[in-house]
Amino acid sequence: MTTTVIRGGLVVTAAEEIHADVLIEDGRIAALADRRSAAATAYTADREIDATGRYVLPGGVDAHTHMDFPFGGTFSSDDFETGTRAAAWGGTTTIVDFAVQTKGRALREGLDRWHAKADGRCAVDYGFHMILSDVNESTLKEMDALVGEGVTSFKMFMAYPDVFYSDDGQILRAMQRAAANGGLPMVHAENGIAIDVLVEQALAAGRTDPRHHGEVRKALLEAEATHRAVQLARVAGSPVYIVHVSAQEAVEQLAAARGMDLPVFGETCPQYLYLSTDELAEPDFGGAKYVCSTPLRPREHQAALWRALRTDDLQVVSTDHCPFCFTGQKELGRGDFSKIPNGMPGVEHRMDLLHQAVVDGKLSRRRWIDLACATPARMFGLYPRKGTLAPGADADVVLYDPHAEQVLSAETHHMNVDYSAYEGRRLTGRVETVLSRGETVLDRGTWTGRAGHGQYLPRGTCQFID
Amino acid sequence: MTTTVIRGGLVVTAAEEIHADVLIEDGRIAALADRRSAAATAYTADREIDATGRYVLPGGVDAHTHMDFPFGGTFSSDDFETGTRAAAWGGTTTIVDFAVQTKGRALREGLDRWHAKADGRCAVDYGFHMILSDVNESTLKEMDALVGEGVTSFKMFMAYPDVFYSDDGQILRAMQRAAANGGLPMVHAENGIAIDVLVEQALAAGRTDPRHHGEVRKALLEAEATHRAVQLARVAGSPVYIVHVSAQEAVEQLAAARGMDLPVFGETCPQYLYLSTDELAEPDFGGAKYVCSTPLRPREHQAALWRALRTDDLQVVSTDHCPFCFTGQKELGRGDFSKIPNGMPGVEHRMDLLHQAVVDGKLSRRRWIDLACATPARMFGLYPRKGTLAPGADADVVLYDPHAEQVLSAETHHMNVDYSAYEGRRLTGRVETVLSRGETVLDRGTWTGRAGHGQYLPRGTCQFID
Amino acid sequence: MTTTVIRGGLVVTAAEEIHADVLIEDGRIAALADRRSAAATAYTADREIDATGRYVLPGGVDAHTHMDFPFGGTFSSDDFETGTRAAAWGGTTTIVDFAVQTKGRALREGLDRWHAKADGRCAVDYGFHMILSDVNESTLKEMDALVGEGVTSFKMFMAYPDVFYSDDGQILRAMQRAAANGGLPMVHAENGIAIDVLVEQALAAGRTDPRHHGEVRKALLEAEATHRAVQLARVAGSPVYIVHVSAQEAVEQLAAARGMDLPVFGETCPQYLYLSTDELAEPDFGGAKYVCSTPLRPREHQAALWRALRTDDLQVVSTDHCPFCFTGQKELGRGDFSKIPNGMPGVEHRMDLLHQAVVDGKLSRRRWIDLACATPARMFGLYPRKGTLAPGADADVVLYDPHAEQVLSAETHHMNVDYSAYEGRRLTGRVETVLSRGETVLDRGTWTGRAGHGQYLPRGTCQFID
Amino acid sequence: MTTTVIRGGLVVTAAEEIHADVLIEDGRIAALADRRSAAATAYTADREIDATGRYVLPGGVDAHTHMDFPFGGTFSSDDFETGTRAAAWGGTTTIVDFAVQTKGRALREGLDRWHAKADGRCAVDYGFHMILSDVNESTLKEMDALVGEGVTSFKMFMAYPDVFYSDDGQILRAMQRAAANGGLPMVHAENGIAIDVLVEQALAAGRTDPRHHGEVRKALLEAEATHRAVQLARVAGSPVYIVHVSAQEAVEQLAAARGMDLPVFGETCPQYLYLSTDELAEPDFGGAKYVCSTPLRPREHQAALWRALRTDDLQVVSTDHCPFCFTGQKELGRGDFSKIPNGMPGVEHRMDLLHQAVVDGKLSRRRWIDLACATPARMFGLYPRKGTLAPGADADVVLYDPHAEQVLSAETHHMNVDYSAYEGRRLTGRVETVLSRGETVLDRGTWTGRAGHGQYLPRGTCQFID
Repeated sequence: MTTTVIRGGLVVTAAEEIHADVLIEDGRIAALADRRSAAATAYTADREIDATGRYVLPGGVDAHTHMDFPFGGTFSSDDFETGTRAAAWGGTTTIVDFAVQTKGRALREGLDRWHAKADGRCAVDYGFHMILSDVNESTLKEMDALVGEGVTSFKMFMAYPDVFYSDDGQILRAMQRAAANGGLPMVHAENGIAIDVLVEQALAAGRTDPRHHGEVRKALLEAEATHRAVQLARVAGSPVYIVHVSAQEAVEQLAAARGMDLPVFGETCPQYLYLSTDELAEPDFGGAKYVCSTPLRPREHQAALWRALRTDDLQVVSTDHCPFCFTGQKELGRGDFSKIPNGMPGVEHRMDLLHQAVVDGKLSRRRWIDLACATPARMFGLYPRKGTLAPGADADVVLYDPHAEQVLSAETHHMNVDYSAYEGRRLTGRVETVLSRGETVLDRGTWTGRAGHGQYLPRGTCQFID
Repeated sequence: MTTTVIRGGLVVTAAEEIHADVLIEDGRIAALADRRSAAATAYTADREIDATGRYVLPGGVDAHTHMDFPFGGTFSSDDFETGTRAAAWGGTTTIVDFAVQTKGRALREGLDRWHAKADGRCAVDYGFHMILSDVNESTLKEMDALVGEGVTSFKMFMAYPDVFYSDDGQILRAMQRAAANGGLPMVHAENGIAIDVLVEQALAAGRTDPRHHGEVRKALLEAEATHRAVQLARVAGSPVYIVHVSAQEAVEQLAAARGMDLPVFGETCPQYLYLSTDELAEPDFGGAKYVCSTPLRPREHQAALWRALRTDDLQVVSTDHCPFCFTGQKELGRGDFSKIPNGMPGVEHRMDLLHQAVVDGKLSRRRWIDLACATPARMFGLYPRKGTLAPGADADVVLYDPHAEQVLSAETHHMNVDYSAYEGRRLTGRVETVLSRGETVLDRGTWTGRAGHGQYLPRGTCQFID
Repeated sequence: MTTTVIRGGLVVTAAEEIHADVLIEDGRIAALADRRSAAATAYTADREIDATGRYVLPGGVDAHTHMDFPFGGTFSSDDFETGTRAAAWGGTTTIVDFAVQTKGRALREGLDRWHAKADGRCAVDYGFHMILSDVNESTLKEMDALVGEGVTSFKMFMAYPDVFYSDDGQILRAMQRAAANGGLPMVHAENGIAIDVLVEQALAAGRTDPRHHGEVRKALLEAEATHRAVQLARVAGSPVYIVHVSAQEAVEQLAAARGMDLPVFGETCPQYLYLSTDELAEPDFGGAKYVCSTPLRPREHQAALWRALRTDDLQVVSTDHCPFCFTGQKELGRGDFSKIPNGMPGVEHRMDLLHQAVVDGKLSRRRWIDLACATPARMFGLYPRKGTLAPGADADVVLYDPHAEQVLSAETHHMNVDYSAYEGRRLTGRVETVLSRGETVLDRGTWTGRAGHGQYLPRGTCQFID
Repeated sequence: MTTTVIRGGLVVTAAEEIHADVLIEDGRIAALADRRSAAATAYTADREIDATGRYVLPGGVDAHTHMDFPFGGTFSSDDFETGTRAAAWGGTTTIVDFAVQTKGRALREGLDRWHAKADGRCAVDYGFHMILSDVNESTLKEMDALVGEGVTSFKMFMAYPDVFYSDDGQILRAMQRAAANGGLPMVHAENGIAIDVLVEQALAAGRTDPRHHGEVRKALLEAEATHRAVQLARVAGSPVYIVHVSAQEAVEQLAAARGMDLPVFGETCPQYLYLSTDELAEPDFGGAKYVCSTPLRPREHQAALWRALRTDDLQVVSTDHCPFCFTGQKELGRGDFSKIPNGMPGVEHRMDLLHQAVVDGKLSRRRWIDLACATPARMFGLYPRKGTLAPGADADVVLYDPHAEQVLSAETHHMNVDYSAYEGRRLTGRVETVLSRGETVLDRGTWTGRAGHGQYLPRGTCQFID
C-alpha cells in the first residue's frame, strides 16, 4: 500500500472550505482529518506533501472536449495524448470526450473507434459521451446497451444540417428513450436550418469575414433552439443538458425552465465568459481563431452568463476544447467563414480562468469548484469518485497557488495548437501540483505524468435525476 | 342614387356606442347623425329601417375560412356559395379565404383556381390569403406581385410534414420577403415533425380514437412552434400572425412577445373558447366532429383564452371554418384518428357566440366588435372600408337583436354540413337584418341575398404595421 | 339653432382616421358625413370652417392639473383663468383638477372651496377629483355623496408624510368604499416614509442641490409603492389608477398587473417622456425648474415609457400641471431641495409634445388621440361627451396643422409662469383653431375665448369598469 | 482526550453521501475516513458507535424558535430547558432564538434578559437573533456592538402595529446599518396596517372563529410586504431574510429577486408544508391550535413551497417554534380570533417531517440536510462549526434510522404543550442517537442529556454575503 498525506492546505470543495489534511492510500482518499487531531498527527505516509498556503482541490472535470475530432475536412489538433496532458497541466484530471456515430453506421462502431483513439494514450482519466448522428430504431436500441456500459449521455445537434443534425422527431425519440434508460440527452441548441439561410445570404452578399460567423448565428436562434429542446424534453419526460450556452436570451430560457423545477441543465465555457465579438472582428482573418459554435457574443452577454453561474441557472463550465491550428486549419476558411473549422483550444486554462473570477469577486471559491469539478462529475455519473475530496474518492488532487501570477501564451501552453485564445492575458493563481489517482503527474511545475496512466471511466447516469 | 336610413338603433363599433342614425347612399355610409339633429331629421331616404331596440353593427369580418378546401382526400363541404350565405346569416359580410399553392407549381396557378372557385358564387365580399406550400426563389418573387394585387398575407405551416409543411429556413425566407414587401406572414404553429412521431406511436399502440388526436398534438408543441415563429420573425424583421391559438402556453408566448412591443398577433376561434377535450372524447367516434388542428384543449385553457382576448394578447376571433360531414367525410378516420379530415364548421355562429360572451360578462360590446370586425379588417388591410361604421365605409350593416333567444342546431343552420358543433346550445342574441354594400341580404330572418353579389376584395397591407 | 360645418379635414379619433365633414348644431356634433355625400353637400350652416390640410381632432382632456394649488407654503402660479386659457391654446378643452380636503375637515368643504376658485373663471370645461387627506368613517361616507354628484375619483398619497399621506389602512378602506360606490382610487405611488429618511440623510450630508431630489426619490421606491397600491386594490376589489408614472420599474409592475387582466391603470406625463435627470442637474439651481414628484428619471427610462404607451401598459398622458415661478417660488428651496415647491408647467404643450412623437414614429396618430383625449375621457366618466368626435358629443374640436413649426418658450407661452421646461424646443405641428361646445375660443391663432365660458362637468364613473 | 468513532453509517451532508467512519476527539470531528482505509481501521477510540443501516447526519440547526416568549399577554409554553430538550429529541442540536427589545429600552437590556432565560438551562447549543422593536439613533448604534459580540441578525416586523411593528423608514435605517456592519436583516413580511383593518372588519361582522385569522391575513398582503422588504433592502444595499414564508405569491417575489442575483433569502416552516386552512377550520375552536402568523394557507400553496425548496428559491426550513397550550392559552381567543396567541409547537419534528419528504420523493437526502442544517448554519454565521460533518466541526451528530416508523402525538412528544399539530400523523424515519459536541444526549431513544450542557454561540455574519 502506497500512502501519501497532504498537510497544511485549505481544502476547498463545492461544499466546504476546511483546513484539513488529506490522507491518501493506494490512489484513493482515505481520510480528511483535522490537522490538529490525533488522527492526523499519528498518520505516517510514504510521502508528505506540504500544502501550506495552497488550496487543495479536487481535480477538475471537463465534461466537453473534442480530441482528435473530425470537422470540416480536418481533425482537431490535440489528440488524446497531447490533450489530456494539457488538461492535467491545467488541473483537470478527468475529461469526458465525444465519440461520434458515423451516419448510417452503428453507435458501437463509432464508440469502438474512439476507444481506439484514446486507449493507452491518456495522461488522466476519461469517459465518453456519444454523438447521435442518425436516430433510428437500431440506434435507439443501442442507446440502452451503451448506458449499461457507462456511456450514459447522448448528444444531438439542432445545428449543422447534413452533418450531425437531428430533426425534432429524432430528438424527441432519443429523448423518450433516454427517459426510459436513464441517459442524459445533450443538445447543441442552434437553429441550424435558419442559420444556413443566413450563411448563404451573407456569403452571397460578400460578407465572408470571420466576424460574419457571429452575425449569422444569431442569439435569437440559440434562444429559439434552447426553448425547443426544453419543450421536446418536457414532452419526452426526459432531462436535457444544453451545451455551450453563450447568449443571454438562451440563459433566460434555461432560467425559466429551472424556475419551473424542470430537469434542465446548462453549460457555458470560458470563451463566452471572457471573449466576445470584439475578438471575432480581429483583422487579417485573425478572427478565425475565435470561430466556434455557438459563436462568441457581444460583450454585454458576459454579465448575464456570470450572473447565471451564480444563480445556478447555468451549472457547469466546460471548455468545448476543439483546437485547430491557425496555419493550415483555420485558414481553410479564408474568403468563406463557413469553411473555418469550428472550435477553440481551452482545456488547459479552465481552472485558472475561473479562479480569476474568484479573484475578481464574480464567483465564490466553493462555486468555482462546484462549476468545474463537482457538478460536472454528478451530472455525468462520476460522483463521488470524481469531483470532490472525500473518503473513498479517487485521489485526483490539485495543489493550487492562489497568489502565483501567470501570463497565458501559445509560447508556454501545452496544448498542440499554434495560438492561444488568451495570448498575453495575465492571471492570478496557478496549478502547482497534480495527482491522478494518487500518482503525481505534475510536481511543482514539472511534468511527471505519462501517456497511458489515464483510464477509461464507465459512468453512471446523471445524479441530478432520481 | 339609392338611399337608406337606419333610425333609432344603438350603433356599436370597436370604439363607440352611440345612439345615432345611419345614412346610406349607394352602398356606402354617407353619415352618422345624432338622431335629434336637424341633419338627421331632414334626411329623406328611399328606405327607412327601424332599429329601435337593436344594435346597429358593422358586418363581421371572418379572416379565416376554408371553402371548397382539399384536405385528407376530400373537400370541405361548404363551397363559396353555401359558405358565404351561411356567413351572411350569421352577420359576417366579409370573409378572407385561403388560396392554396400546389407544391411545385406557381402561386398564381393556385390563386387563379381559387378565384375560379369563388367568382360569381359569393353572397358577400371576399378576399384571399395565399398558402405557401413551397418557398423557393420563384415563389418568393411571386409574393411581391401578389401583394401588389391585394393578396397581402401568406400562410405557412409548421405542421403537416409532406403536405403544407415549410421548414424553418423556408419560413425565414418568406418572412424576410414579407418584411420587404409589406406582406403579413401567417403561421400554423405546431411542431408537426414531433407530433408525427407521437401520432405514429399512438397508432402503433392502438390508441386510434379521435380523442388521441388531442393528446398527441400537445399544448407544449403548440407553444414551442409559437415561440419559434416569433423568433424567426424577429430575425427576419417581419410581423407574424399566429392562426387558431388554442393552448394557454401558446398565449403566454404571444403575451411575452407583445409585452416587448413586437409586431406579433394572434387569433383564436370560438371552438377553443367553448369546446374542449370533453367533446373530443365523445363516444362512438362522435369526437371526430371536433377534430381540428390545433386541437381542442382541456377546459382549463378556455379561461386563458378569454383573458387574452380582454388583455389584447389575442386580437382576432376567426372561425377556421372548414366543415366536413360526419357521414362519409369524418368517417374516413374510423380506426385511425390521423385520417379524420381536420376541421369544423363555424362561419355562421361567430358573431352570436361572441355576443354570448358579452351577455356572460366576458367581453364588452365594443371589444366584441373589435375582435370580430374592426381588428380583422385592419389586420388584413380592409379598414375602414370594412370593419366599422363610418362615413365612407361600405354599408355592410347588421341589425342585431340582443334579447332574442336561439338554439343552435344542424336542423336549422345554413352551413352545408350534417352536424353542428354546438347542437342544442342556447344563445341570447340573434342577427335580424344584414346589409352588404347597402343591399339587404337578410331581412328580418328572410333571405334576400344572391350568389354573385359578393365581390372580390383586393386588400391593402396590414394596418398595424407602419 | 346655431350651425357650423367643418369641411375638408382628416378627422382623427382614437378609433378612426376618416375624411369627413363635421356638422355642428348648438354646441354638439350633429353628424359626421362623407364629404362627397348628398347628406354633407346639402348641409347649410351658419358658419363654414375650411379644414383642408388640417387634422380635425376632439379637444384634449387633461386629467391631471393643479390650478391655484397650495404646496410648500405657496400656490401654483396658474389660477383657473390663466390655466384653462393656456390649456385651450394648446388644444385641451377639458381639465380635471384636484380639489383638496383639508386634514380634519369635511371633503365637502374642500370641494366647495375649489368650486369657488373655478366658478366663472374657466375658459374651457372642467371637473374635479377629490384629494383625500384624511380617511375616516365620516369621509368614507362623504365619498358616496361625491360620486353621486359627479366627483367620482379620489386621490391618495403614499408620499408626503404629514401632508397628504394616507397609510395603507386608510388607502385600503377608501379603496373598499370605491369598490362599492363606483369611485376610482388614484394613487401617488412613492414610498414617502422611506424617501423622507433619504431626504434627511442627503440634507445632513450637505447634498442639497435640486439633483438630489431625483436621487433620493428612488425608482425602486416608486416601483415598491406601485406594487403595494396594486395589491391593496386587489384586496379591496377595486380598480386603481396610478398617477404620473416615471420609472421603468414602476411600469413593469403595471404591465404585470394588466397582464393578469386586473383593473389597473397608469398615467405618465410629457416631462417624463422628454426630460430627465440631465435637466435636474442644471447648474446654478436651474434644476429647480424640473423638480416634481415623482421625479425626472435618467434618460434610459424614457424608452420604457414610450413602449408602455404603445403596448397599453400606460393608458393616459396628463400633465400634472402645477407651475411655480422660478423667481420667488422655486427659490424657496435654495440650499434645501426639499423646500422647492414640487411641480412643473405643462398644460399648454401636451397635445403638441405628443404629436411630435407621431412625427418621430413613436406613436400612431390614433394612439395620440387615444392617450390625450379618448382614454382620459373614458377613464373619468366623460365619454362620449368628451374625448371623441361622434354624433351627440360636445363640439369640442381642434383644427391641427400637422406641418406648422413652432418653438416653445416662456416668451410666447400662455401659462402664468416665468420659465418653460422646454425652452427652445422645436416642434412640428400646432393647434390652429379650437372650439369649445361649438364656440370658437381660438381662431387661427387669435384668442376669442372668455373666462366663464367653461362649465363644471359632473362626471360619471370610470367607463373601463363594468 | 475523549475519543469516539462512529462506524458503518452513511454520512449524509448537504454536499455528499459517503460511506465513512466519523472520528471524534474531544467534542470535535477529527476525521472522516473511508471505512476500509488503514487510517480508519487503525483508529482506536474510547467508544465505538455502530451506525450500520443508519444515516450519520450533522445535528439540525433550527434558526427560528421562540422559547419563553411573551405574546398576547402570555408566554410560549416551552422554556429554554424544555424547548432545547425537545429539539435534541428531534435531532436538532442548535437553535437560534429571538431576544426581544422592549420598546423604548436598550437592545442590550433585552439581550441580557434573554441570556438570563437561557443561561444554564439548555440541553443543546444556542444563539440569539435580536428583535428590533424600536429603531432609532441609539439602537442603530447598539446594532454594531451586537454584531461584534455574535448577535448578527436583526428581526423587524411589518406586522403587529403597536407591538413589534417598524415602519418602512425604520426598516430602511436598520437595513442601511446592517449593510455597513454585516448584520442580516430578518423581516416578518405581512402588511400589518392593512391586515388590522380587515381584522377589525371581520370582528365587527361577527367573523370571530379561528379560520378568519387565515382569511384576513391575505396571501396578497404577504406578497406585498415581501416585495416591499426586498425593495427596501435594495435601496439600503443590504441582504434580507424573509421569515416563515407561507404564500405562493410571496415565493414568487423571492424567486424574482433571486433570479436577479440579489442577496435575498427565504425560510419556510413544516406547518406551511404539511398543514393548511383545512386545519384552521377545525370545529369547536380547534382551529386555534393552528393559529400562527403568517397563517396557514389553502392547500394549493404547498406545492409551490416544495418546489421553491427544490429550486432554491427558499433556502431554509425552520420551525418558528412558539407553542401555546390549547387549554388556558389558545383559549384566550375564544370569541375573538385576534386574541389567540400566535404560534405553534414544532421544534421536535422538523428533521422527521423533512425526512418524510425524502421518503415521498419531494426532496433529495442532501437537500434535506442542506435545508435543515447546512444552510441555516451558513446563513447565521455558524458554519462549519455547525451544520456539517467535517474535520474541525463540532461533533453534533445524529444517527438516523430511515426505516423506523413513528406516530406523532402529544402523548409522546417532549415539547411542553398540550397538543400536537400533527396528532396521529405516521412518519417513516426517526432520530435514534444524538451527540452534542461529542456528548451523547440521546442514546438509542434514552435521554442522557442535561440542562446546562448547551452553550451560547456567538455567531459570525451571514456566510452567503462576501
